[in-house]
Amino acid sequence: MAAHTVLFHPGEKAISVPTGSSVLQAAARAGLSLHSPCGGQGRCGKCLVQVKSGCDEAKPVERQLLTEEELAQGWRLACQTRVVGTAEVTVPASSLVAEHHIMVEGVGREILVQPNVRKVALRLPPPSRDDPRADLSRVMDALGPGVQTPTSLDVLQRIPGLLRGADYRVTALIVGDALVALEPGDTAEHAYGLAVDIGTTTLVAYLCHLPTGRVAAVASELNPQVQYGEDVISRLQMAVSQREGASHLGRLVAGAVNELIGRAAAQAGVSREAIYELVIVGNTCMSHFFLGVSPTGLAGVPFLPAFRSPQTVRAADLGIEAHREARVLMMPNIGGFVGADTVGVILASELDRAKGLQVAVDIGTNGEIVVARDGELYACSTAAGPAFEGAGISCGMRAAAGAIDRVAIDDDVSYHVLGDVPPRGLCGSGLVDAVAEMVKVGAIAESGRLLKPEEVESLPEKVRRRLAWNRDGIEFILVWPNQSGTGRALSLTARDIRETQLAKGAIYAGMALMLGELGARPGEIERLLLAGAFGNYIRRESAMAIGLLPALDVERIECIGNAAGVGARLALCSVSERRRAAEIARRVSRVQLSEREGFYDRFANAMMLRPLPAEE
Amino acid sequence: MAAHTVLFHPGEKAISVPTGSSVLQAAARAGLSLHSPCGGQGRCGKCLVQVKSGCDEAKPVERQLLTEEELAQGWRLACQTRVVGTAEVTVPASSLVAEHHIMVEGVGREILVQPNVRKVALRLPPPSRDDPRADLSRVMDALGPGVQTPTSLDVLQRIPGLLRGADYRVTALIVGDALVALEPGDTAEHAYGLAVDIGTTTLVAYLCHLPTGRVAAVASELNPQVQYGEDVISRLQMAVSQREGASHLGRLVAGAVNELIGRAAAQAGVSREAIYELVIVGNTCMSHFFLGVSPTGLAGVPFLPAFRSPQTVRAADLGIEAHREARVLMMPNIGGFVGADTVGVILASELDRAKGLQVAVDIGTNGEIVVARDGELYACSTAAGPAFEGAGISCGMRAAAGAIDRVAIDDDVSYHVLGDVPPRGLCGSGLVDAVAEMVKVGAIAESGRLLKPEEVESLPEKVRRRLAWNRDGIEFILVWPNQSGTGRALSLTARDIRETQLAKGAIYAGMALMLGELGARPGEIERLLLAGAFGNYIRRESAMAIGLLPALDVERIECIGNAAGVGARLALCSVSERRRAAEIARRVSRVQLSEREGFYDRFANAMMLRPLPAEE
Repeated sequence: MAAHTVLFHPGEKAISVPTGSSVLQAAARAGLSLHSPCGGQGRCGKCLVQVKSGCDEAKPVERQLLTEEELAQGWRLACQTRVVGTAEVTVPASSLVAEHHIMVEGVGREILVQPNVRKVALRLPPPSRDDPRADLSRVMDALGPGVQTPTSLDVLQRIPGLLRGADYRVTALIVGDALVALEPGDTAEHAYGLAVDIGTTTLVAYLCHLPTGRVAAVASELNPQVQYGEDVISRLQMAVSQREGASHLGRLVAGAVNELIGRAAAQAGVSREAIYELVIVGNTCMSHFFLGVSPTGLAGVPFLPAFRSPQTVRAADLGIEAHREARVLMMPNIGGFVGADTVGVILASELDRAKGLQVAVDIGTNGEIVVARDGELYACSTAAGPAFEGAGISCGMRAAAGAIDRVAIDDDVSYHVLGDVPPRGLCGSGLVDAVAEMVKVGAIAESGRLLKPEEVESLPEKVRRRLAWNRDGIEFILVWPNQSGTGRALSLTARDIRETQLAKGAIYAGMALMLGELGARPGEIERLLLAGAFGNYIRRESAMAIGLLPALDVERIECIGNAAGVGARLALCSVSERRRAAEIARRVSRVQLSEREGFYDRFANAMMLRPLPAEE
Repeated sequence: MAAHTVLFHPGEKAISVPTGSSVLQAAARAGLSLHSPCGGQGRCGKCLVQVKSGCDEAKPVERQLLTEEELAQGWRLACQTRVVGTAEVTVPASSLVAEHHIMVEGVGREILVQPNVRKVALRLPPPSRDDPRADLSRVMDALGPGVQTPTSLDVLQRIPGLLRGADYRVTALIVGDALVALEPGDTAEHAYGLAVDIGTTTLVAYLCHLPTGRVAAVASELNPQVQYGEDVISRLQMAVSQREGASHLGRLVAGAVNELIGRAAAQAGVSREAIYELVIVGNTCMSHFFLGVSPTGLAGVPFLPAFRSPQTVRAADLGIEAHREARVLMMPNIGGFVGADTVGVILASELDRAKGLQVAVDIGTNGEIVVARDGELYACSTAAGPAFEGAGISCGMRAAAGAIDRVAIDDDVSYHVLGDVPPRGLCGSGLVDAVAEMVKVGAIAESGRLLKPEEVESLPEKVRRRLAWNRDGIEFILVWPNQSGTGRALSLTARDIRETQLAKGAIYAGMALMLGELGARPGEIERLLLAGAFGNYIRRESAMAIGLLPALDVERIECIGNAAGVGARLALCSVSERRRAAEIARRVSRVQLSEREGFYDRFANAMMLRPLPAEE
């Protein structure tokens, strides 16, 4: 069959279609969604376009709906107009299905909303002797040539009753380019998706309204896998040593995701069945566990994942309770221990397109570090431990109500507590503040040693009294029992300080080593992005004072919030961002720190609690 | 990335690949399967090709395997050779994975075996520090660029253990262009498919060895839906009037298909898990029931099916017990009551490419008739009833051991029985013979009335004695009780004669009406094909004598066996035959007999038991 080129204005999109195709079909192929509530019957007049050339003559229905003058100007109904030659067509904005843009907070990006899941309301012509099309053809014809027939038995089994019961007014659920479900009536606005960041310690879920991209609710939850160890390594060992270990870890998270779905859906006032897609980020181990894939290859050199590419599976197969046809997109991994969460951070922060030397640090139980220089991307993962997430510290807690997030020490200790409640523990930013202030006043040596009361005679008396002996040695009492929400003192022990040093040392050493490989120095970093919930609360001065971050102008350090989660949201709301994520995963070079010469020396050095010189 | 054209000899296939693609990948894209048991590692030397131009220099591994002279002649290993420009490559037959042809009996066609399900044995390189590809990438790279990553969670979950447990020697199951499963070791030869003809009365299953296309076993079974009525109409009523009626009818057939799978697999000595695909034909109602789709639209004017296009669903979703990833292809329907079985008949008989006027009649409970004239195709379905399948007749039975398949009447009745057993009933061809012979000797009038003994004084005494009164009227005793395998007489009643007249009248009238629409007369039929088990046994002279078939030269009438089932086998063994089937379904014009003027007159006329003039 002959094919013709159709050029669409504005946007100058040119595509090729077989002769006789409708302009509506051609527009769909060009990625332009035109209004057509009547299902291409020429009744509603919503798909108006202006034809310059290459189309057939106006039909009687068009002559009814359009004036002589309009016809003379080339106005036509796209559904009635057939392409018969090289054509040129202008699509007015009014005919286009509204394009939503969303502004993504934190990362300051605006994107065009183009979700992978679309719902299209249809008003189909009922069958007649002159129109004996099969039920399915009736639907597919209305959806146009860009949509594939369903492979789900469910759609087939329901279609006869559905069309007749809903008076031929139905809503098609299109995922990618396939018809996946049909619903009675017009439910086009009832379409939600869930972006989930599976952290080693914390899960965060964003419920998004897909047609507009706005966040309808947010919920978070501890990762229930912590019962098998606070770090990835212990869970990895459990997963490879126990039969069905990975599946068990996966089911635990699926259960937590179901909890999050329940809470987020209730908060937004929607049903969990209105959730049609989930996009998941997490580190490589979390990705494997979530899909129930044994991380055998990750347990030893050369640290091979089972998969790196994006994976799409049915939510129901993972035990996720959402729409029965909901899919889960597991975002692509970079490799070894650098996972989809890092892809999310790069996507959210656009480091793949950044100019000059830029660094992103996602501080979680694993500290992922990305170094970008003019489009070149390197990433590594450091085993920071959960200290900055408030775990593994005797009085640690998440940044929730009751958490101390700011500490200052002068004559005495002062602090700020999240929420209007007495303090119950210390979150990551409070920990960094506390350690930095203790070093500042001299309660901790740069080596990390807590000083004995008798060694710090010069300390203000109220501060000195907080250095107290317990069974295991010295501890520093931040909150006295009578002021604590728990009724017990909140202290930092020698072990807590050590955990903090290990965590910050791992992160700093990783960053320094990656920069070294590029021949760059920390002082050359033009923009240092702090991702993770922690990044939002941290006092940058304290982080620099203890050498968690290199000593830079404070202005160069930006907090970008849960960028991994934002990356998942972007992929949920935009297919082009999704493609970009897959491209990012392919482009990033993974740096295996433990294999690099000098890493352990750097690590030992980076454990010192002092500002680390930016020129080193 | 730059793309280059590669031209393959012999066959002159030209395709385009990105620069740097291997010739092995390019060949795969061109649809050429080259041997590569080492998985593209350059070790086995099985993928030899002769390069004329456009490729890079020979690699060290090739210099080891090939002589100086061979290299000078352009011989290369396809897996090691990269395309760097416009290339020309000759593929010797020895490098091609053997192409099997099968000869299909009955229809006398030879086809190239190209099943939709392929198994490829791989020997993958184990991982190393220098080759840290993810498990899945290792497999996908070996399969080449034409294969899509799996969407099944199962493959992902099994891949780490599978590769390591099988020493990286695995067999990939590829369905269409997607990797669907992996098996340990080399199981490439263990690949079967099942072609099933779901008749209203009988199911027939052909177990086919996919790599060669040969039939490994055949099994048949009564359609268990007969408990809800012998014809489609009663089942249709049950399906639309009872809740889950269609699903229930579907499950009945699925159970019978599972029986057939068990019997055929046992017969061939394979396990049911070695069956990876089923291709199903049946009339439109059978298609709907099998998929559990309510035939609501078929129950009234304008007789709309829910779907017409080919449908692919998971076998497990239908309750079919085969390989866990097995798919079911439901062949396309033509419309209303003309189904995939008719598509199968056209495909098997190549009526879509036939010259002149040709007709195929598939005599089952529905009699489907196809009229082809120089590529134009028309089809209709007639409600013949199950008489010719041996049902609905007082002494009727299937063409199995004990069935009388031939009857002659001279001085007395003589007959032939299938199998070495006493007669137990009359199959379709025996019925046609009996009626024809009874008309010939004058025991039945042309109107179909059984004569009373006193009206036929001239009949031979032994024949006349067989016309006997019973409670309901006259009957004709074919087999006396003492000669019958059942211990009771086998007779034809007035009602049996009537059923036969209705069946043959419906078929003849349908054919005559369709020919009439084309302005053709029965005498112009150049080739009349009889499909269905019945067609194999029928005596053409008898069929013409009672006006079931038009009076033609006997040579113009050919029996083509279960052509619907053969069509399913062709689609199972060849993707191009499958595409042709979809094309056929789109091309055939369905003729709705009951809406045509004059049909009932023709029908009434065609019920007469006499040769029908070919020139009418």
